[in-house]
Amino acid sequence: MHIGFIGLGNMGGPMARNLLAAGHRLSVHDLSLEAIEGLVEAGAGAVGSVAELGASDAELIITMLPAASHVRQVYLGENGLLAAVAPGVRLIDSSTIDPMTAREVAAAAIQQGNPMLDAPVSGGTGGAEAGTLTFMVGGAAADHDAALPVLRTMGKNIVHCGPAGNGQVAKVANNMLLAISMIGVSEAMSLGVSLGMDPKTLAGIINTSSGRCWSSDTYNPYPGVIEAAPATRGYSGGFGADLMLKDLGLATEAAKQQKQPVMLGALAQQLYQTFSNQGHGTLDFSAIIKMYSGEEQ
Amino acid sequence: MHIGFIGLGNMGGPMARNLLAAGHRLSVHDLSLEAIEGLVEAGAGAVGSVAELGASDAELIITMLPAASHVRQVYLGENGLLAAVAPGVRLIDSSTIDPMTAREVAAAAIQQGNPMLDAPVSGGTGGAEAGTLTFMVGGAAADHDAALPVLRTMGKNIVHCGPAGNGQVAKVANNMLLAISMIGVSEAMSLGVSLGMDPKTLAGIINTSSGRCWSSDTYNPYPGVIEAAPATRGYSGGFGADLMLKDLGLATEAAKQQKQPVMLGALAQQLYQTFSNQGHGTLDFSAIIKMYSGEEQ
Amino acid sequence: MHIGFIGLGNMGGPMARNLLAAGHRLSVHDLSLEAIEGLVEAGAGAVGSVAELGASDAELIITMLPAASHVRQVYLGENGLLAAVAPGVRLIDSSTIDPMTAREVAAAAIQQGNPMLDAPVSGGTGGAEAGTLTFMVGGAAADHDAALPVLRTMGKNIVHCGPAGNGQVAKVANNMLLAISMIGVSEAMSLGVSLGMDPKTLAGIINTSSGRCWSSDTYNPYPGVIEAAPATRGYSGGFGADLMLKDLGLATEAAKQQKQPVMLGALAQQLYQTFSNQGHGTLDFSAIIKMYSGEEQ
Amino acid sequence: MHIGFIGLGNMGGPMARNLLAAGHRLSVHDLSLEAIEGLVEAGAGAVGSVAELGASDAELIITMLPAASHVRQVYLGENGLLAAVAPGVRLIDSSTIDPMTAREVAAAAIQQGNPMLDAPVSGGTGGAEAGTLTFMVGGAAADHDAALPVLRTMGKNIVHCGPAGNGQVAKVANNMLLAISMIGVSEAMSLGVSLGMDPKTLAGIINTSSGRCWSSDTYNPYPGVIEAAPATRGYSGGFGADLMLKDLGLATEAAKQQKQPVMLGALAQQLYQTFSNQGHGTLDFSAIIKMYSGEEQ
Repeated sequence: MHIGFIGLGNMGGPMARNLLAAGHRLSVHDLSLEAIEGLVEAGAGAVGSVAELGASDAELIITMLPAASHVRQVYLGENGLLAAVAPGVRLIDSSTIDPMTAREVAAAAIQQGNPMLDAPVSGGTGGAEAGTLTFMVGGAAADHDAALPVLRTMGKNIVHCGPAGNGQVAKVANNMLLAISMIGVSEAMSLGVSLGMDPKTLAGIINTSSGRCWSSDTYNPYPGVIEAAPATRGYSGGFGADLMLKDLGLATEAAKQQKQPVMLGALAQQLYQTFSNQGHGTLDFSAIIKMYSGEEQ
Repeated sequence: MHIGFIGLGNMGGPMARNLLAAGHRLSVHDLSLEAIEGLVEAGAGAVGSVAELGASDAELIITMLPAASHVRQVYLGENGLLAAVAPGVRLIDSSTIDPMTAREVAAAAIQQGNPMLDAPVSGGTGGAEAGTLTFMVGGAAADHDAALPVLRTMGKNIVHCGPAGNGQVAKVANNMLLAISMIGVSEAMSLGVSLGMDPKTLAGIINTSSGRCWSSDTYNPYPGVIEAAPATRGYSGGFGADLMLKDLGLATEAAKQQKQPVMLGALAQQLYQTFSNQGHGTLDFSAIIKMYSGEEQ
Repeated sequence: MHIGFIGLGNMGGPMARNLLAAGHRLSVHDLSLEAIEGLVEAGAGAVGSVAELGASDAELIITMLPAASHVRQVYLGENGLLAAVAPGVRLIDSSTIDPMTAREVAAAAIQQGNPMLDAPVSGGTGGAEAGTLTFMVGGAAADHDAALPVLRTMGKNIVHCGPAGNGQVAKVANNMLLAISMIGVSEAMSLGVSLGMDPKTLAGIINTSSGRCWSSDTYNPYPGVIEAAPATRGYSGGFGADLMLKDLGLATEAAKQQKQPVMLGALAQQLYQTFSNQGHGTLDFSAIIKMYSGEEQ
Repeated sequence: MHIGFIGLGNMGGPMARNLLAAGHRLSVHDLSLEAIEGLVEAGAGAVGSVAELGASDAELIITMLPAASHVRQVYLGENGLLAAVAPGVRLIDSSTIDPMTAREVAAAAIQQGNPMLDAPVSGGTGGAEAGTLTFMVGGAAADHDAALPVLRTMGKNIVHCGPAGNGQVAKVANNMLLAISMIGVSEAMSLGVSLGMDPKTLAGIINTSSGRCWSSDTYNPYPGVIEAAPATRGYSGGFGADLMLKDLGLATEAAKQQKQPVMLGALAQQLYQTFSNQGHGTLDFSAIIKMYSGEEQ
């Protein structure tokens, strides 16, 4: 299949490579020439503008952009995708943005005859490279099914979350809970250790009790508890604190629009903002445990 | 073995019955005559005072009391256990109290030659009746090993958490994390559903993603998501909100003494206090999700 | 002077009347015919559209609109003010909106030769009727000075806060602090009274101590402490809880964009959202003290 | 009058000196010989123990101790004051402790015929030296009146707050509100300045608006806004962050016992604990604004 791909950053780059590796014909666009070069060497065709890519004969166009403002511009802008694509071309936006913008863009696409899905991912750059991402897909069931073969070349776990925008809803709800859990584990581990518990023993008890969670049993923030976790390698790699901060901003913004209180979610956002301002935004998000030990900062 | 048991409430009563059922000779004491009667009918001997029970030939005495002040009085009071027991009599306190009091009482017992364990439980009245409690045990390894056969008649999962007081530390840390997770799940589910997600679909996605936790995959607070959870039967049964409030009070008090911040833990305590004051303290603690839906209150 | 006025709601209506009463010629526009009628009876001229008012010979146009989206549309829309007004016509926006939008609109106006001020108010409908509002003015000093005579017919206290947008900054910062103070007073009064203090005695002590603040000494939320406060008349009138919620949303949004943590501000927003969802959004914002007394809800 | 004074620390020392300066005969006791020496040089008599001071012919004994445990020991201990004093000797405890302990000690004193007041102070070491402290007095009105002449030699503002313990209630409620206000001002000032406001202009607007409070108009945490505030001299002197942390601990503990939620109060406590752990506990409590500017830490 001829696939277009816009946005070749840390996530989009490896995702596009996996499409190439699966044998698809790939046309790419990005504002960074360097990002494009790598893909062109690997066999992709470079396209000079969003509009040009939209007007090509690509049957499917995937976008992976930093924020809602970029999505809005790339799809709805004067020289954007929707103005350029022929009816029937399929569109998938894998950016993580607010559900309302996702729904607005999808509605515009669908109205002019272009099936569209929102399909944000989790799994980080490691998952993007290994092709093991999770895709949370919002859109019509038929469109989800049609996209499955392509999504499977980039991810392992493809979940249909309901109509347009629901992929974003699932991501934002999950990640807000993730941030809360991670801070909760940080507090519980710090408190227990301050009271004389061995960290591995405490984690072991929690992981077989009602406090059990992914942030404790798979990604424990206390150094040395889990060999493979970022905590054990100085909080390098993983999912950056600033990315978590961005997702918490999406969550509280969506909550505000829905008039839905999110007490712990809002406090988690403020704690990550404080942590980021202390210069730790590029560390893995589990490094938030540093806020609970004055001496380590 | 001749075992003494003090405190025959909702938890202590069924625990004592399981000791009887396992063939032990049992002497019991409680301020409530009604509580004693039931046990006496089942074959236990009634003892009129703490001191009398201490002076009997029971080789092991187990206590299950509401709060630290009771533990202090029963063990350290003028007519308390420590003043009455012969050296060598083993002591196990299964009350949930602060780690500092647990350590103080254990130190006094050990100094006069009485091996002592703190062994708070989780699993609720259901677990107490079924004999499937989890015991979190603090104290010397040898004393833990010696107590294992008896604890196994009342529980399924016996975890040695380290020296005296560590059973309480593990419980308080786990339950603080549990409260935070439960509120986090409540916020994530409420937010997702307000944005149009089906609750079962959302829970399904979270449970296979990084937001996965016991509060979501086993005890989800959203009605109808998990058949066996209290949420699906009107939040009856389970672990009462007021009991969680008590445990959060122990957690923040211990944190204060350790000079350990617990931001989300402290906020969780305030939310449960607010919820309790609204008249919901006897509901299962997962009912906290009601705070996130104005109309249900 | 010929003045145009757009937005004749609870605040804008009385403000416009005061302009008329001061002898100005007034042209008004609003989507509500009822709102216009009252002003026309009082001597104003009705104008059918924003564009028509822009193209009239009004030397100054004042707008008082509910939210940033309306401001954007009225000023920047296809048939908006900026497209219609002649160079030199002065513009004042008294809506409470985010500082960024205020700056964007002002920049567009100034670039085409229309001096513009942001001038949000405080003082409520009472202040609007009595002409005793406080205006927080952002924009060039000369433009502020030129607007003073007109603003003084509607307000008592006119404060120049700096360049464009700073009026909004001052309002949003003050009101976030106001919400925090009001909740703080609610907690302090509730705690003191629960411990046996007479509310008037406690307020008296606070008001001569370091806890002194407007929320305590002028607008105390405890019923009966201050005769003239909304608390003493069932929290009717005053500044509605939902309006405070809106301002807190502006504050946390601006904070997010500035990467500035606002821990208590964010929590205050969530508490007002919870309070609003309980059905209390139209009460005066001091009614938040109800959240601290389970029985009153 | 012959007055006894126990506890000659940073506050008690200068208070005792003011009693001497007013012409009273003074007997003092403290565990620190150095503290006693200074007073003896100034004319006080040194007494070797609490019991000895209690048994002397002092008509009034004043205590100024660090925490409730000390108060309990000095008054109720085996060799404590109550066991030693003759009936009729008046007692005043100026320590800041929890209201419940204050009430318990006062009840014991009164039962054996010793009128007792709790009279915690505010005003800091500066106020203690200048004799301008505020005394918040709990106890019988007649006892308060009888103590007035002596209290006036140490303070300027003597407020009767109601029956025993109410002095502590007033102090704890006021100081919790003070902490919340100070953090609120820190957030509002930081937010406003980050958005481009001049700090003095912003403070000026707040101080004439509804955000007005002692933390803003008298003790503003932003450096340079108020000449005489600790913020303008590097946060030295003043009321230490660790003392505020202690008072917040008293407030949340009292709230827990009263089943009274204090959301912002609890969060303020956690923020001060975090701030203290970062090594800032000896700075004035207004230095909490540093938590809102990543670069200053």
